[in-house]
Amino acid sequence: MRNIKMILEYDGTRYHGWQRQGDMVTIQKILEESISTITQEDIRVIGSGRTDAGVHAINQVANFITSSKIEVRNLLNGINSLLPLDVVVKELIETDKAFHARYNAKCKVYLYQIYNRPVRSALYRHNAWFIREPLDIGRLKEAALLLKGTFDFSSFCAANCGIKSHIRTVKNIDIEMNHRGMMKICIEADGFLKYMVRNIVGTLVDVGKRKISVTELTGIMEAKDRRRAGITAPAHGLFLKEVRY
Amino acid sequence: MRNIKMILEYDGTRYHGWQRQGDMVTIQKILEESISTITQEDIRVIGSGRTDAGVHAINQVANFITSSKIEVRNLLNGINSLLPLDVVVKELIETDKAFHARYNAKCKVYLYQIYNRPVRSALYRHNAWFIREPLDIGRLKEAALLLKGTFDFSSFCAANCGIKSHIRTVKNIDIEMNHRGMMKICIEADGFLKYMVRNIVGTLVDVGKRKISVTELTGIMEAKDRRRAGITAPAHGLFLKEVRY
Repeated sequence: MRNIKMILEYDGTRYHGWQRQGDMVTIQKILEESISTITQEDIRVIGSGRTDAGVHAINQVANFITSSKIEVRNLLNGINSLLPLDVVVKELIETDKAFHARYNAKCKVYLYQIYNRPVRSALYRHNAWFIREPLDIGRLKEAALLLKGTFDFSSFCAANCGIKSHIRTVKNIDIEMNHRGMMKICIEADGFLKYMVRNIVGTLVDVGKRKISVTELTGIMEAKDRRRAGITAPAHGLFLKEVRY
Repeated sequence: MRNIKMILEYDGTRYHGWQRQGDMVTIQKILEESISTITQEDIRVIGSGRTDAGVHAINQVANFITSSKIEVRNLLNGINSLLPLDVVVKELIETDKAFHARYNAKCKVYLYQIYNRPVRSALYRHNAWFIREPLDIGRLKEAALLLKGTFDFSSFCAANCGIKSHIRTVKNIDIEMNHRGMMKICIEADGFLKYMVRNIVGTLVDVGKRKISVTELTGIMEAKDRRRAGITAPAHGLFLKEVRY
């Protein structure tokens, strides 16, 4: 048996997220169908983690076990020829038998895009959260510094996430905005709770709008209560950028 | 009567270009319909020039004459509320009565995006021409220098363009490629012939692929014969970036 590791790019706009859910159109489902057709086996694809409905990926990582002897280059081309145009396998290699895309992931980087300008964008309508009200990027950066470190992130976790430990380490948050108002928020952590990036972004935006102060953010984190934080930022601004092993 | 100038952004993917053509879905048509609904008049929109089917705009410029007394801010919001999400008026101002978006245009800048990497892109599938074969960017830049200046661009003009003079001045061509293989070609000229940018890009790509030499490009230009140049690059990589007056 061979263990195949893939790096995937997808536009999540028309998908019900990563995870297979019956007949819903999901990334995992269309990948498993395409690979199964090529290898003539019943393939199960393991992703580094789920991405929510509408969330995109620049470099999602996944692996699958196969007894197929098809050369990696032909496997890559074959799978890509069957995948729809909004999903693609960027790289495909044969890897260590022990490699597991989810269990071995040490760190992930997410990118969130906000388009902050007076009118909505036609070109970025599927790739950035449009916010009309001017955001104070200085305050946003200051607030982001408070999130760096090892904390209980319960205030930023979906109510139904059903996980024991809410402690995660945010290694880095980087915020940039260009002169056209496109803001990029990159968050690197050893793991993410359900909706964590989107809840952090929603709360940072409240700081940027001066609805809450930077010090109030500390109170929100200490409360460990989802109801204290801001709204969940929409899925279409979010990209899984990197998974490190 | 008031003369209203607009700056427009659009995703050209689902449009038959700028120009009204009967019942075809074009940018001009949906703009005229939206503005006419708001102003309750029969509005004619003048664009700086046509964009072809599938071509996008970051900053197209257009104007229209109206007797409406609606304040510019309300006009902008009203029109945008009626336009589909892939078209937007970014700015709208009342301008000099003499201003004509087409006749007064002094210079235009087009951006062409090429994604040069081993596999197609899911995220940029509507915004960049995917080329698998590695392009030699040094050669491409060298060739681009030869196009800078005032020349007869007949070799890069669509056969049916039906214009008397094929002489245009290319003021600048700027080519950049990032580490992920996204190449941006910016071309600034006092005017463009039909398909000129796309035919230039198609020919530069042939130079980048080493199908033709840099010096052969000089021969192609001197021939003033469309059949000598490369293919017409696809529409979906092209953006009208700026119109100067």
